[in-house]
Amino acid sequence: MTETESNVYDVVVIGAGPVGENVADRTRAAGLTTAIVESELVGGECSYWACMPSKALLRPVIAQADARRTPGLSGAVQGPLDAPAVLAHRDYYTSNWKDDGQVQWVESIGVDLYRGQGRLTGPRTVEVTGPDGERRVLTARQAVAVCTGSRAALPPLPGLADVRPWTSREATSAQKVPGRLIVVGGGVVAVEMATAWQALGSRVTVLVRGGGLLERMEPFAGELVAEALTEAGADVRTGTSVASVGREDGTVVAVTDGGERIEADEILFATGRAPRTDDIGLESVGLEPGSWLETDDSLRVTGHDWLYAVGDVNHRALLTHQGKYQARIAGAAIAARAGGTDLDAGEWGAHAATADHGAVPQVVFTDPEAASAGLTLAEAEQAGHRVRAVDVDLSTVAGAGLYADGYKGRARMVVDLEDEIVRGVTFVGPGVGEMIHAATIAVAGRVPLSRLWHAVPSYPTISEVWLRLLEAYRDA
Amino acid sequence: MTETESNVYDVVVIGAGPVGENVADRTRAAGLTTAIVESELVGGECSYWACMPSKALLRPVIAQADARRTPGLSGAVQGPLDAPAVLAHRDYYTSNWKDDGQVQWVESIGVDLYRGQGRLTGPRTVEVTGPDGERRVLTARQAVAVCTGSRAALPPLPGLADVRPWTSREATSAQKVPGRLIVVGGGVVAVEMATAWQALGSRVTVLVRGGGLLERMEPFAGELVAEALTEAGADVRTGTSVASVGREDGTVVAVTDGGERIEADEILFATGRAPRTDDIGLESVGLEPGSWLETDDSLRVTGHDWLYAVGDVNHRALLTHQGKYQARIAGAAIAARAGGTDLDAGEWGAHAATADHGAVPQVVFTDPEAASAGLTLAEAEQAGHRVRAVDVDLSTVAGAGLYADGYKGRARMVVDLEDEIVRGVTFVGPGVGEMIHAATIAVAGRVPLSRLWHAVPSYPTISEVWLRLLEAYRDA
Repeated sequence: MTETESNVYDVVVIGAGPVGENVADRTRAAGLTTAIVESELVGGECSYWACMPSKALLRPVIAQADARRTPGLSGAVQGPLDAPAVLAHRDYYTSNWKDDGQVQWVESIGVDLYRGQGRLTGPRTVEVTGPDGERRVLTARQAVAVCTGSRAALPPLPGLADVRPWTSREATSAQKVPGRLIVVGGGVVAVEMATAWQALGSRVTVLVRGGGLLERMEPFAGELVAEALTEAGADVRTGTSVASVGREDGTVVAVTDGGERIEADEILFATGRAPRTDDIGLESVGLEPGSWLETDDSLRVTGHDWLYAVGDVNHRALLTHQGKYQARIAGAAIAARAGGTDLDAGEWGAHAATADHGAVPQVVFTDPEAASAGLTLAEAEQAGHRVRAVDVDLSTVAGAGLYADGYKGRARMVVDLEDEIVRGVTFVGPGVGEMIHAATIAVAGRVPLSRLWHAVPSYPTISEVWLRLLEAYRDA
Repeated sequence: MTETESNVYDVVVIGAGPVGENVADRTRAAGLTTAIVESELVGGECSYWACMPSKALLRPVIAQADARRTPGLSGAVQGPLDAPAVLAHRDYYTSNWKDDGQVQWVESIGVDLYRGQGRLTGPRTVEVTGPDGERRVLTARQAVAVCTGSRAALPPLPGLADVRPWTSREATSAQKVPGRLIVVGGGVVAVEMATAWQALGSRVTVLVRGGGLLERMEPFAGELVAEALTEAGADVRTGTSVASVGREDGTVVAVTDGGERIEADEILFATGRAPRTDDIGLESVGLEPGSWLETDDSLRVTGHDWLYAVGDVNHRALLTHQGKYQARIAGAAIAARAGGTDLDAGEWGAHAATADHGAVPQVVFTDPEAASAGLTLAEAEQAGHRVRAVDVDLSTVAGAGLYADGYKGRARMVVDLEDEIVRGVTFVGPGVGEMIHAATIAVAGRVPLSRLWHAVPSYPTISEVWLRLLEAYRDA
């Protein structure tokens, strides 16, 4: 292919993370010719600097904590984790940051991969600038899908770049355990990485501007996670901002807004995400570079019938699984429109990402795990639903006590009083990560409480909390 | 109270296991005066010789197996379990076979407890023979509920009693780890107890008459559990019956139908259950002593408008959680009939144990865990449903690989082709126990596949197998 060659496809996907891969998979399965453009590693943030490495770091922490809470076993696992073994396993799970396997998969489904920076140059046209500076123009007969994701957003602190701060990328790929680590932020990345590195041997200090951790979940989630982090030896300081930061002889020095000086070997900023849309040629089609892209429920960008924005870039739900869900729907919608068939775009239709509104699940892989599906009480009220929340102390559930000695955890169910369906569920405690899909099905399936009484939890699992929640609602 | 005193209640419950307790709880909550009769420990089989002690024995086994499969931790947990610590914890969970706590609870809800053997002496009349031989007659204005459960059924082998074989009771309450243990049977009790005692230090031999273990589940469940038991060091022999058994100088000697002689220190017969209805006066009301009691979906015994049979005794589903479910429904039905209100007894109504037919869940706490909800493929076909089963190798799910190194497991979804709802789901593998409630909600909720596509599994949990199952069905 030469600089001037024009390559025409039905669909061009910009960004080959899990979201872009899933769009391409679906359009290809529908018989549409598809190109995918990737400027870094095929497989994206999730495979190399997010879900996979973070969970590879966290699983041993959780398994060790579970073992420590188990009679007859706890004595054997009092020592520290074998950090080199954990890091090596994490390297294995990121394929040592090589994407050969993913490239093979893209080829296997008959999608053409273009390496380089993809930029829109006008409607239906993407120019790819390869690593060698070579340019190729791709034309999309049907659709362009922007799946470029998000990056860590750093606060505008003077001199921050000179500190070489960690973002989620360095926190998930570091090859050495820092002796002391400052974590700035209180969201998912912050608490997961604080949990991982504290267990791997760092002395972690968490600095949170707000009043607590995990503030987008029910309040008790952040409370229980903060309590456990503190018990694990981390120093969690809420209501604390970083006023300035620098490196002195290699040591990070952060000064808080209260004037306190905190030293560390590394500092992680987990202070939010920004869309990776600043350099993809949005200006050529009248959109604002660096902005989140607004879409309808078929993931089509408002006002552009050929342009889709899928995954983090649309800011609907910054979660890999939700992006993949959108990708399946966007791919199907592109195929349906290409084939001239009517869209099934009503609520919960095959071409509507309805779950993005009120049925999004999330699992935070800390110890304890925090998992939610649907809306929190505050979100449900804000959305105008007439709801009632019921809480259950998970330690009162037989299966929880059997799972872990001294079990601590909490569950909340938010019930819509109009039709008695579940708007949201939150579980926090050891072993709850795999419990949340039940809630996701209940919320997305709009299963009424009267029927949930017939969904019998197996005894003695922790899932018996469902019965306790139903009883709490009935007896409230 | 004296021999001649007649005590009149609205409801008399015979059997104070979890099932009887739940019936009493519901009738009491409805304002009906209630008596409960118990010949052994209040709390029943589940609390002292089944669910609680078995799970207290098994949880350390599973946690250790999980830890061994975790990089960075496996080195610390190669040694054997601390058996005395596990047994002591089990003792704690059975309250050392004392029922004070449960008695307090019964009193706290305002139910009168009668200790002794309860026997029907005619319609609505129960005679209780106390431990001291004292007799009391209870009259039930509204209903008598038989909740006496089941006991281990021993095969008619000559001399078996002299061997003092273990049943589920001894297997869950033993204070010493036998050096060698023979387990006869291949069902849930057999595989769970084989798993527990092998891990606690016994050399276990499992003798199964049939072709495999866990034959009421999907075939791969028994296969994977047998494989793991064998890897753990147990000797699993299928197609093998016990022809004779005896004790020689304290040593158990079992001779198989093939003439092989197997020696052991103890032998557990886990060869089925029999109803505890042989000595409850059934003959006084025209029913057959020792029989399972047939009921309608409100749990009322066929032909007796005042008599209910709830839990194992009705043979609908011999599981604690299902018995408790029936108990809630029976209690509500008794209360509704007592109050003269119409029953909500249609399918999935408040007074119909509809879930007993096709929406029963079960978790087998072995390593790997085996969990199912609803019907197996064979059961669905036998029930006349037009179904298709799709399977997924759980090791292909990212969350499974992250959960355990070398993950082995399998999932099956049985889909009804008429209306594309899920008839049954089976998961076998580490960490699947809490995953099954999602399937229970899908099956009981009759959530169609088209909606399950919108129930997004959180990434990277093992629950992402739901997506793989939907894809397998779509692409089949």
